[in-house]
Amino acid sequence: MSRIAYVNGRYVPHRQATVSIEDRGLQFADGVYEVTAVRSGQLIDETPHLERLKYSLSELRIAMPLALGALRFVQREIIARNRIADGIVYIQVTRGAARRDHPFPAGASPTLIVTGRNSKPNAAQADSGIAVITVPDIRWQRCDIKSVGLLANVLAKQAAREAGAWEAWFIDREGYITEGSSTNVWMVSQDGELVTRQADHSILNGITRRTIQRLCGDLQLRLVERPISVSEIAQAREAFVTSATSFVMPVVKLNGHELSDGVPGALARRLRAEYLRLADRPKAASRR
Amino acid sequence: MSRIAYVNGRYVPHRQATVSIEDRGLQFADGVYEVTAVRSGQLIDETPHLERLKYSLSELRIAMPLALGALRFVQREIIARNRIADGIVYIQVTRGAARRDHPFPAGASPTLIVTGRNSKPNAAQADSGIAVITVPDIRWQRCDIKSVGLLANVLAKQAAREAGAWEAWFIDREGYITEGSSTNVWMVSQDGELVTRQADHSILNGITRRTIQRLCGDLQLRLVERPISVSEIAQAREAFVTSATSFVMPVVKLNGHELSDGVPGALARRLRAEYLRLADRPKAASRR
Repeated sequence: MSRIAYVNGRYVPHRQATVSIEDRGLQFADGVYEVTAVRSGQLIDETPHLERLKYSLSELRIAMPLALGALRFVQREIIARNRIADGIVYIQVTRGAARRDHPFPAGASPTLIVTGRNSKPNAAQADSGIAVITVPDIRWQRCDIKSVGLLANVLAKQAAREAGAWEAWFIDREGYITEGSSTNVWMVSQDGELVTRQADHSILNGITRRTIQRLCGDLQLRLVERPISVSEIAQAREAFVTSATSFVMPVVKLNGHELSDGVPGALARRLRAEYLRLADRPKAASRR
Repeated sequence: MSRIAYVNGRYVPHRQATVSIEDRGLQFADGVYEVTAVRSGQLIDETPHLERLKYSLSELRIAMPLALGALRFVQREIIARNRIADGIVYIQVTRGAARRDHPFPAGASPTLIVTGRNSKPNAAQADSGIAVITVPDIRWQRCDIKSVGLLANVLAKQAAREAGAWEAWFIDREGYITEGSSTNVWMVSQDGELVTRQADHSILNGITRRTIQRLCGDLQLRLVERPISVSEIAQAREAFVTSATSFVMPVVKLNGHELSDGVPGALARRLRAEYLRLADRPKAASRR
């Protein structure tokens, strides 16, 4: 079966799906995106992802290309037409195509792309835990906007791969971890506190991050939002990362050194299980 | 006459020229570009622009999509097919199209786009001088790479337009000007020194910047490379910006206040005239 993509109102074969060479997404990274996980054919946290899309667009003063209801419909069509059981739906919106010039163009219509695909489950990886490295955070200072300006993230993820690691954590000028190249970062401190960085302009406020925060409340876990230093996390009881596609992923190695005795931490495993249980609840209840 | 673009080996009508929705330029800003001015049908500083393209690609480990000689040929074809007298040629190279995933994809071929267009001369603007505003420099920390990750530049230029200005200067954390959203920044200090910021990772080392530096040598002007503060340039004898398309552009207003008594400075006007004289020299001599 060949993949089907949605581009500006039309469902087209994925291989033939294109945008103009003067799309501002291509020429200026003038666009934003969302990746939403699909599990058993159902979107996880669909509403918060669409709300964040609205936020990103609003910060850049790009119009929503479709009403939310229509966008929900397109996502379902993409899931159905691509027979997605477990995988992702990807939405990208750019400021549209226009004669190349930096300022916002008058009269351009936003470009809307929606794609989907099945992907392999990452349970085995969660069972063994992942390795991470650290890299300087050289990104721009509006990481709260989920823009497609991801070149620094690409370089960080590539550095991780070449070091035999799965993720790279960005370190700010003060030696604190901001976030991973595609994940938020968490630790369980020696005191048993669950810690993750506060959501400001230096990180993307992850949807999975927020779901886990709510879960912590439900489970009556102590949660603190503050910066985490590299030396502190190296000594932590456990560490893990969260994202829409990795869910909760335990970290067992940092810059080549064992973390959490080299095995996934108990709390990380528990939060992953709880998160997936929540995601697998019947649809009506899980539309948050 | 309809415009013609070059995309991956083919000359196609500009309106129909497209790239894949999974081009990494569109999804990750994983690409670079060059804008070269055309004057009387001739490229200005063609060789340094191609050398800088090679540098940007090399820093990102993207292969040159064509040999330099072939790329020169394509640029000439674009000039001829679009009958460009005075205007620009735009080159963009991305890491290519691949299933979306942050690390460098195995086996993707770089995407090469070359376009061109005529544009209006900016002599009147140079005669009156331009207004600029300042904005915080929130960009990433590898501005020496001419990547398409230009969202911060877009926002800065838009802010300038909305303030009735032509350019926005980025200010670093220490209060120094890094560069403009699409230009390098210069001043003539109260002591008569010509000053521009040193080329490091915080700015793009402009081709026009370098040509002007050489000109300064020829004209035996005192040139200093160091950071310039906002308060210092507000008191300077004169200020100007340089870029491939603005050449040398005098600045007469900064954040609403007159600069250089509100008229283009003598040295800026002289350097502009010398720069254009150099650009208009017969071809064989000007291929630098």
